[in-house]
Amino acid sequence: MKKLRQISVIGMGLLGSSVTLAVLRSFSSIRTVGYSHRASTRKKARDLGVAEKIAEDLLSCVRDSDLVIIATPICTFEDIFEQIAPDLKDGCVVTDVGSTKKLAHQWARKRLGKTVHYVGSHPIAGSEKRGVEFARDDLFFGAKCIVTKDKNTNAAAVRCVKEFWSSLGCSVSVMNPAEHDKVFADVSHVPHAMAAALVNATDSKQINFAGKGFVDTSRIASGPANVWADIFMTNSANTAFGIEKVISQLRKLQSAIKQENYQKTLKLLEDARSKREKLIKYKMKKNELI
Amino acid sequence: MKKLRQISVIGMGLLGSSVTLAVLRSFSSIRTVGYSHRASTRKKARDLGVAEKIAEDLLSCVRDSDLVIIATPICTFEDIFEQIAPDLKDGCVVTDVGSTKKLAHQWARKRLGKTVHYVGSHPIAGSEKRGVEFARDDLFFGAKCIVTKDKNTNAAAVRCVKEFWSSLGCSVSVMNPAEHDKVFADVSHVPHAMAAALVNATDSKQINFAGKGFVDTSRIASGPANVWADIFMTNSANTAFGIEKVISQLRKLQSAIKQENYQKTLKLLEDARSKREKLIKYKMKKNELI
Repeated sequence: MKKLRQISVIGMGLLGSSVTLAVLRSFSSIRTVGYSHRASTRKKARDLGVAEKIAEDLLSCVRDSDLVIIATPICTFEDIFEQIAPDLKDGCVVTDVGSTKKLAHQWARKRLGKTVHYVGSHPIAGSEKRGVEFARDDLFFGAKCIVTKDKNTNAAAVRCVKEFWSSLGCSVSVMNPAEHDKVFADVSHVPHAMAAALVNATDSKQINFAGKGFVDTSRIASGPANVWADIFMTNSANTAFGIEKVISQLRKLQSAIKQENYQKTLKLLEDARSKREKLIKYKMKKNELI
Repeated sequence: MKKLRQISVIGMGLLGSSVTLAVLRSFSSIRTVGYSHRASTRKKARDLGVAEKIAEDLLSCVRDSDLVIIATPICTFEDIFEQIAPDLKDGCVVTDVGSTKKLAHQWARKRLGKTVHYVGSHPIAGSEKRGVEFARDDLFFGAKCIVTKDKNTNAAAVRCVKEFWSSLGCSVSVMNPAEHDKVFADVSHVPHAMAAALVNATDSKQINFAGKGFVDTSRIASGPANVWADIFMTNSANTAFGIEKVISQLRKLQSAIKQENYQKTLKLLEDARSKREKLIKYKMKKNELI
């Protein structure tokens, strides 16, 4: 963190504005510059003081920056890389906060110059609340953050990005982008698809009889549709394969239920119960359930 | 409630003991008797004082009772009906707190005598906590409760059971058992199957990368496997059909994702998001999310 004189964040949603706010509050020597393509968001961000400066345009946001963090929907990354590339200073590190990583690495390689270093980041933080008005300087504290690198990634840039997230309180793991996208299809993108499918499968008249179980199981279906459509589009094969695995488990349970096979049904439910209990114990130990 | 001199509850789990405790605290003129087949639970229930009396055997629990409430796993109901039938007084009303209703009505018709009146009940209350030590006198306050009747059900008994749950703070709806089981397959039993399938489909090594989305979507998979196996066994056709509907929605989303069809994917996600937003607004208005 000592080497960083300026960080720039593109996108002043919950994640982006929480990054600038966290740096602003904890590292007064680092200049924080933010940008949003919406004038109304720029005004809000300025009024709330989530960054030292809110730039009026993309290029004056990233100019002179040591670390640029992109916090916009994934499908905008390629365009943004192309637009900012000519104005980035030599040795600048570029990262992001997107939920899929393989395409981001490909686009960075194609669109950013050779004097700029891209490293992927995926902080597992967020909330169902959206927008700069919910920015929190402690959003990343205690969160996992996956940093991704492939064989072309600059080692010093990886160290810089790891140190950056650690300094905001994240517990950092390193993966390659393909591995990341496979793991997160299963633990994040597929659950989202299931929540949406559950809501869409339920009769509009009967849905009001839903209890807390339904409300929890479907919670993430309330997430922003455009952000999630981007995630699915940029991780399509893994997500489609993950959905297939879930359908196969649903078929197993459906078949046991159809046959009224108590022992088979019980075993499938007990397998799930004990596996989840282990997960919850792990999460409690790591303080990741707060 | 004026006519009730004694209520008896079979099963001193969270639901059963919360029923006796709520009556004990609010209606001092009604005698509350509880029973559990486990000696250790009977001792705990006595020590905690959740009922005026904890009977040592099933028959002395129900003898002289005006209203008997069965709060054991559903698959025990037929046996319990058969055992208690000879000892119930004429005009006694029998109900339960089970999550499926069609078989309960059939078993009651077959096993309870003609001088005893069965009405189904399904209070939508509970918690992931289990056992008499979590008994709460306000567990039913603000909860929905479905009361079920078919063409053979005694009208005065239905009034008695409706009044009983209302007096504990429930908002009561009446359905026939077939309709009840169809609706609750979709809004409760299918989400449970999905939560279990999600956990079972996830790799044991990767599961620790799960974030809050996964934890919420899978929460109900931590419920007691035996209770849920009973629910599935007694509502098999509706649950199997509900799983089919969800699989068909998953296939729609999977196909849009595979084709990388952004508009189709976005529409499915947006449909789910807006439908769930309506549900949450309804639940907030009805104060059902506390």
